[in-house]
Amino acid sequence: MAILYAAEQEGANALFQFLTREEPGVQIDTWPNVGSIGQIEFAVVGGELAVDLRQFPALRAIQSTWAGVNALLQSPNLPPGVPVARMVAHEMTGWMTEYVVFHVLDIFRQGGQLRAAQASHSWIEEDSLHRKPRIGILGLGVLGRLVADRLSQLGFSVSGWTRGRGGVSYAPSVGLVSFLAGSDILVCLLPLTEETNGFLNDRLFSVLPAGASIIQVGRGAQMVEADLLGHLNSGHLSQAVIDVFAEEPLPTSHAFWKHPHITVTPHVAAISRAGMGATLILDNYRRTKTGKPLLYEVDRARGY
Amino acid sequence: MAILYAAEQEGANALFQFLTREEPGVQIDTWPNVGSIGQIEFAVVGGELAVDLRQFPALRAIQSTWAGVNALLQSPNLPPGVPVARMVAHEMTGWMTEYVVFHVLDIFRQGGQLRAAQASHSWIEEDSLHRKPRIGILGLGVLGRLVADRLSQLGFSVSGWTRGRGGVSYAPSVGLVSFLAGSDILVCLLPLTEETNGFLNDRLFSVLPAGASIIQVGRGAQMVEADLLGHLNSGHLSQAVIDVFAEEPLPTSHAFWKHPHITVTPHVAAISRAGMGATLILDNYRRTKTGKPLLYEVDRARGY
Repeated sequence: MAILYAAEQEGANALFQFLTREEPGVQIDTWPNVGSIGQIEFAVVGGELAVDLRQFPALRAIQSTWAGVNALLQSPNLPPGVPVARMVAHEMTGWMTEYVVFHVLDIFRQGGQLRAAQASHSWIEEDSLHRKPRIGILGLGVLGRLVADRLSQLGFSVSGWTRGRGGVSYAPSVGLVSFLAGSDILVCLLPLTEETNGFLNDRLFSVLPAGASIIQVGRGAQMVEADLLGHLNSGHLSQAVIDVFAEEPLPTSHAFWKHPHITVTPHVAAISRAGMGATLILDNYRRTKTGKPLLYEVDRARGY
Repeated sequence: MAILYAAEQEGANALFQFLTREEPGVQIDTWPNVGSIGQIEFAVVGGELAVDLRQFPALRAIQSTWAGVNALLQSPNLPPGVPVARMVAHEMTGWMTEYVVFHVLDIFRQGGQLRAAQASHSWIEEDSLHRKPRIGILGLGVLGRLVADRLSQLGFSVSGWTRGRGGVSYAPSVGLVSFLAGSDILVCLLPLTEETNGFLNDRLFSVLPAGASIIQVGRGAQMVEADLLGHLNSGHLSQAVIDVFAEEPLPTSHAFWKHPHITVTPHVAAISRAGMGATLILDNYRRTKTGKPLLYEVDRARGY
């Protein structure tokens, strides 16, 4: 049994050292240097599939180093029937949670207004702390629940919306429209699927309460950018914090860069590093060896 | 038994309604409209003492609506021997905690650099998430422990330093110098006392690790402002976030306003409102009636 490694170069050596220490004698072939095609049973791949995995007859499991697997699942190089696991790395969820907490606080605590006041040397004691915004979280997987926990601990009222897999504590009994109508800050943590493509659009924005803000850390294709601009320019929405875009890097001429009510960050909410998810990769390698189901296995039909 | 109210007008009516609902028949006299001087046993006062409390012979307890009681304790109008309680309002500690978490994240997640990059339409994917800063908290009262809890939950390594009252979980066994040397972000939550006056000075800054940052939400007189500027200008310190100043409002010509490595906020980390600490005021009123010691009673010798 051998591992095929066909993901990022950065951090790969640290991962190999970790796996070799934990599983002495493990064989790791780095694509394209494969010893024996027939021995590859476990493949570690990145966000897109450069290698045709259908050539490995004994392949039993595929582990992505990326949290988002939409591109991977659409690749013709993906053999049908082989289980795929997405990456849920402790560090990634931690960083993503920090990012959301940071920007919720920047909105609530008026970071932008205070920075502008400093720039004009103005001491403005305006009391903005009366109304704590209600937070709505789209997507209540591992990450969404962690974000909800941290924001609740900071005293925010949090609700969540999910397609539902059971056991989700923040899911309200209400439907999507009621959920949106009660979200002063909407946080999108959804995976990219056929259903969520273009999900953040005019219809959805219209249901948010006047003055609402959006934090988008899902995937770029979920946002209809022109619709967002319309609602920010009309004043219906007050602020958008966006880390993912339809086109990345965001083109220099894009309207988002200079919009006074948009915070652009360059896809840094969390950063995938090869060595990072080492524990999950080891776990899933061992589970494959012993015939157990993968952790964070993707439902290919659902798309995440 | 009557209550004397001699604190902020804002929110006072809400407080009176709350007290009247919880303690039907309670008598509240608003200074200077006092019915019978001899009946005042419990006084609610603000940060400074406009009324001479020595004129109330039956006074048994004084409740401040402010968290900081240094000015109150120095007032000649304060009768000796009467217990004083400072305000520890749930909302205040919540806001203060938010402020610290917000600015720790703004420093770690490079808010300033990302905003500058957006201003120049630059997509910079630099990975800044390698080294999570170690947080050092000066002052581990109710507030310091809450801040430490929230930052720990976000994955930060937190240590604390306190003069020690026992039962403080984040206090290291090391002394102040070791504590400072391990603090990449130093958070000052100390009360203002004779000992902490000018405590944030050249000697203290020198012990911090190179590139350290400071978040000052204690009291203005604790900071030797020229010493801070020296360490920021030499590059030994990288960032300072300051909410309290020796002179407030901060004078328009003050060097802090336009310093590239100083974030000035206009004393908004938490906002005292009269109605806010209603629960503590009620609790302490009832404890006074039944002869129990006050919650959050001040040690006058220690100064907080």
